[in-house]
Amino acid sequence: MSLDAKLKASIVQQFEHIVGPRAVLHRYEDLLAYECDGYTVHKGVPSLVVFPKSTQEVSEVVRILHHHRIPYLPRGAGTGLSGGATALNGEVIISLARMNKLVSVDYPNRRAVVQPGFINLKLSNSISSKGYYYAPDPSSQAACTIGGNVGENAGGAHCLKYGVTTNHVLGLELVLPDGEIVQIGGVPDAPGYDLLGFLTGSEGTMGIITEITVRILKKPEGILTVLALYDEVEDASLAVSDIIAEGIVPAALEMMDRTAIEGVESGNYPVGYPRDLGAVLIVEVDGVIAGLQEQIDRVIEVCRKHRVREVRQANSPEERARWWANRKTAFGAMGTISPDYLVQDGVIPRSRLPEVLSRIGEVSRKYDLRIANVFHAGDGNLHPLILYNSRNDGETQRAVQAGSEVLKVCADVGGSITGEHGVGVEKMEDMRFIFTEEEMQAQIRIRDVFNPDQLCNPGKIFPKPARCVELKQPKVLGEHQASVNTMVH
Amino acid sequence: MSLDAKLKASIVQQFEHIVGPRAVLHRYEDLLAYECDGYTVHKGVPSLVVFPKSTQEVSEVVRILHHHRIPYLPRGAGTGLSGGATALNGEVIISLARMNKLVSVDYPNRRAVVQPGFINLKLSNSISSKGYYYAPDPSSQAACTIGGNVGENAGGAHCLKYGVTTNHVLGLELVLPDGEIVQIGGVPDAPGYDLLGFLTGSEGTMGIITEITVRILKKPEGILTVLALYDEVEDASLAVSDIIAEGIVPAALEMMDRTAIEGVESGNYPVGYPRDLGAVLIVEVDGVIAGLQEQIDRVIEVCRKHRVREVRQANSPEERARWWANRKTAFGAMGTISPDYLVQDGVIPRSRLPEVLSRIGEVSRKYDLRIANVFHAGDGNLHPLILYNSRNDGETQRAVQAGSEVLKVCADVGGSITGEHGVGVEKMEDMRFIFTEEEMQAQIRIRDVFNPDQLCNPGKIFPKPARCVELKQPKVLGEHQASVNTMVH
Repeated sequence: MSLDAKLKASIVQQFEHIVGPRAVLHRYEDLLAYECDGYTVHKGVPSLVVFPKSTQEVSEVVRILHHHRIPYLPRGAGTGLSGGATALNGEVIISLARMNKLVSVDYPNRRAVVQPGFINLKLSNSISSKGYYYAPDPSSQAACTIGGNVGENAGGAHCLKYGVTTNHVLGLELVLPDGEIVQIGGVPDAPGYDLLGFLTGSEGTMGIITEITVRILKKPEGILTVLALYDEVEDASLAVSDIIAEGIVPAALEMMDRTAIEGVESGNYPVGYPRDLGAVLIVEVDGVIAGLQEQIDRVIEVCRKHRVREVRQANSPEERARWWANRKTAFGAMGTISPDYLVQDGVIPRSRLPEVLSRIGEVSRKYDLRIANVFHAGDGNLHPLILYNSRNDGETQRAVQAGSEVLKVCADVGGSITGEHGVGVEKMEDMRFIFTEEEMQAQIRIRDVFNPDQLCNPGKIFPKPARCVELKQPKVLGEHQASVNTMVH
Repeated sequence: MSLDAKLKASIVQQFEHIVGPRAVLHRYEDLLAYECDGYTVHKGVPSLVVFPKSTQEVSEVVRILHHHRIPYLPRGAGTGLSGGATALNGEVIISLARMNKLVSVDYPNRRAVVQPGFINLKLSNSISSKGYYYAPDPSSQAACTIGGNVGENAGGAHCLKYGVTTNHVLGLELVLPDGEIVQIGGVPDAPGYDLLGFLTGSEGTMGIITEITVRILKKPEGILTVLALYDEVEDASLAVSDIIAEGIVPAALEMMDRTAIEGVESGNYPVGYPRDLGAVLIVEVDGVIAGLQEQIDRVIEVCRKHRVREVRQANSPEERARWWANRKTAFGAMGTISPDYLVQDGVIPRSRLPEVLSRIGEVSRKYDLRIANVFHAGDGNLHPLILYNSRNDGETQRAVQAGSEVLKVCADVGGSITGEHGVGVEKMEDMRFIFTEEEMQAQIRIRDVFNPDQLCNPGKIFPKPARCVELKQPKVLGEHQASVNTMVH
């Protein structure tokens, strides 16, 4: 889709009136910077990018787009990994980059209110001196926005103990696709239906989130971290199972395999891992100091049971920080050992880990592409990184196919095709591994209660129907089945 | 509503064909036992009660009711406290009492599958020998069903640390109001929209839940419990705030005030609390044994800072069990000091506790009714028990009004009108403290995607519109806005 030139000029003028002349991009060379997010396989240049700085401005911009039936989508920092913020068909991008304020903090009741463009890590940094932090910690936390985190229901290394974004969102302000501003949640245990959870992770398809109330946590009194080095990834997997079986709930339980280690050791934050290792585990426990050392001693003991080559505890916060910097930049570090890489995001029942790893190995051999594995092992969330070279003929397509096949493996063992990156553009076809055509149509019907004209982030999450499915005849609807004009607070 | 005699006879016959002749109640004297649940202010005798024993039977029963447009509702153990399972207008009751099986347990992946009529406590008892338990523990856990818990999103004393029912539900099987059987969730981190959270706590208004997959947890290695006795409830409140501020996350943090203590000491499980106490706190920590004693020592220290009369640690599991039996039967024990009582269920921001307690005192004086307070203090969930005598003219109505006014106090400080008991029949009018008419209409529209004919548990949660509200004109709907015939698994 591209906007008619005259209409576009008129829209630009109207937008400039709302947000100011410097907050609308309309020249092709400026728009090109917005042709994709962190998922680079599919691209699309937006018709316009507009930068509102308040809820009111978002609402006014959306009203104009709604009036002209022009599709649009929200964008945070553009760090998403499934193409959710990509203007595949020239949609208008509403960037939340200027809505980047920490609105308020209520320490006694442990809540903070942020604008959607507020950067994840900044929240913890802002409240750190008072002894608080924000738990969800995606690897991109230094860049990604909390609005984007809500859109994708982002996870992170510490979600094993603390839960993903949806467990920390207490309230949302949303601009509906017709421009109306509504409040969702915001009171503890709001009665009625749980719309808050329903909106979290809806990938920008229900409206534009303009303010977020999140839970903040008291920083744990102590954090102890252990590194365990294994010759064989199977032994590391067994150690993971055993740690969980012990009844210990680690704050984090991360794993990297041989190829991933090769990547991180070639990156900007090498730890000095031997290159012949089969796997590395990072296990962290946190909480009150009393008893914490005994907990980590038990972790060490379990690690030793499974033919560990070496296991050691971090001697200082600096050593711990080095291990995490190495782990958190794992995706980017793959760039040092491969021209291109594709990050996958599957979830499996923890008990199936060894089997799934072996099947991922088969996929790697079948497509003749190396696959590095980085895992949030404790909660069964895998990030296979498929290494490829886009300059080699057909190799991108092969990588995409290999990625899809890996997700099929996850679905086949009763898992899911996304843990924290969302479906976006990337995994639309893979939705078929989990849902039937009819089941997806049912989800679409519910989306359309919020987004009846499919103006807000259209064409995402659900694949186009593959065949003529025999859907039941829709029932005659009374007027109460109309789209949602007002929402609950 | 009462069914036409001929139609009723035909329905009974059809039901008997599906579920067997001994599984349909149709005589008035049998039906009378089902005239209310644990909320006894409003009653209604059902037209029929039917007891299916499989999903297929529920589906067949529902198809017949749907065909004849006969309203119905699901019922578990009937322990609900807001009238959600009451056939106010003679609805047919579908009792899930015979669907009381533990279907399967998957220990490595920590999941159990239960039928909806399976009793909460039986799950923990069934898996206890393997070292596991089910966390949500409503006071009624020896009687209430997990299906009912899902319907109301039930909490419990240990939800401070472990979260309420919605945090433990991994999958649902649902019979939609047209009889179709659908699966929701069931895979970890299912992609698409979070329908699972949306259905949990929907109070039986979206369909009949016929199977539930829940998370089971490894039993904590150790549990330590402390009792702190205070002369003044204000001091106990300050201790609660300070314990949380210390960064300790107790497994439970319960409070009872003077009148509640009088009740429990007159009940079947007296602990021997002095009758002149102002408040009792029960604080429990659990987890790995290492460090646990140090944690509880800190709790004791904090309790002592606030003019505690006495603080002591449970010396044995038996002593702890006595304290909990006393606390968990607090509601019932009120019957020993008052002919009738009404349980309320408000939520407030923790920091407003002293102010809210003082305002509840004002309500008590205004209506000249004693109010006992039992709290899940750690998460700000209050259970004011309004004591009254239904034989005194107008006193029931005064108790209802006092209860509503207490909820208004909770709403006014930014809290909610229900933490875990649901809205049901009881708090429909109180929904106005939280939502505008338009906001409630919006929620109703979403319900009607699932339940378009309002056959399943009609007339609950939302009050009848009080006045002619100016609702927006509904939009013309495409066929994709039809009701949901299939759901996601």
